[in-house]
Amino acid sequence: MTIIHLQPESLARSPAFSAGTITQGAGRLLVVGGQNGVDASGALVGHDLASQTRQALRNVLAVLAEGGASQKDVAKLTIYLVAGQDPREAYGASAEVWGRFPTAITVLIVAGLANPAFLVEIDALAHVGDPA
Amino acid sequence: MTIIHLQPESLARSPAFSAGTITQGAGRLLVVGGQNGVDASGALVGHDLASQTRQALRNVLAVLAEGGASQKDVAKLTIYLVAGQDPREAYGASAEVWGRFPTAITVLIVAGLANPAFLVEIDALAHVGDPA
Amino acid sequence: MTIIHLQPESLARSPAFSAGTITQGAGRLLVVGGQNGVDASGALVGHDLASQTRQALRNVLAVLAEGGASQKDVAKLTIYLVAGQDPREAYGASAEVWGRFPTAITVLIVAGLANPAFLVEIDALAHVGDPA
Repeated sequence: MTIIHLQPESLARSPAFSAGTITQGAGRLLVVGGQNGVDASGALVGHDLASQTRQALRNVLAVLAEGGASQKDVAKLTIYLVAGQDPREAYGASAEVWGRFPTAITVLIVAGLANPAFLVEIDALAHVGDPA
Repeated sequence: MTIIHLQPESLARSPAFSAGTITQGAGRLLVVGGQNGVDASGALVGHDLASQTRQALRNVLAVLAEGGASQKDVAKLTIYLVAGQDPREAYGASAEVWGRFPTAITVLIVAGLANPAFLVEIDALAHVGDPA
Repeated sequence: MTIIHLQPESLARSPAFSAGTITQGAGRLLVVGGQNGVDASGALVGHDLASQTRQALRNVLAVLAEGGASQKDVAKLTIYLVAGQDPREAYGASAEVWGRFPTAITVLIVAGLANPAFLVEIDALAHVGDPA
């Protein structure tokens, strides 16, 4: 276990996220850069928020795996949604791909992303143990 | 002391923030997820920016305390304000709750937050010593 | 070398950024707070995105240097552009000042920044070795 979840009594609880996280034991910081709904060829997987969210999270999971980490090692997820989308579409899609691994989260509605066709971007901080 | 403040000669100085920070000595990363102006029951504390900012910062302080940290251990604060608000209202409210603890800061005006009634969200990175 | 770049097979590759990064060996976290296109006197260097981007990155480099780090130690850059600007202007200006040091990146189009004259803000996370 490399992440401890913080949930002060004075804060509302949510099954979907942690109020905070703290790393535990020696280890290294893994940063996942902003991921979008594009596949290995760089092509957009769809023009709807649910498809793009699923793919962005698959990409986040692939970067975590490449660094030896998985959902349970994530200290923070930040989800950037383009204005005009329904956040609930992203939440539903997240549950499908990510499963139930609450972590510290920030959700923002932004004016846009680097590519005007992108509807969502997701980045992450994780903590992984030192190599054996 | 777990945080050193960086202030290069070539950068303008501000009493309110540090140009950068660097952790000092062994320790762990504490992530505070995005906090809003809601109380322990999840109810919004008010519909004005000052009330929501004070409560969001109280929530940040509660998460820090839960992890054994306080303002002086914060390496970064990010303040997300919804478009159309006056940032000065947030700065005044911050000073009341947070006091004078400059740290590295990013302030963004975003198109919205996860809940349309939220006017501000604040998250943080802190560094705390290893448990004794 | 304090940063390893992660590039899973299943993700599109870019010469400009890494899918993720992971810190290597003992060290400390360096946070660069949001930097804008202002000089040492706090004056805005220009009203165009290219000038502001160059100056914001010079400020990021100054903070990194103050903490004993440089581009190769950067684990994450986040670039916030104000809506209505052409991101390509920022990319061209970045290449001039920053050179070719891919890292994990998030690019966001935001509704605004703390000062209405700011067109860009850039912050960073880096990893530096422990002091000798």
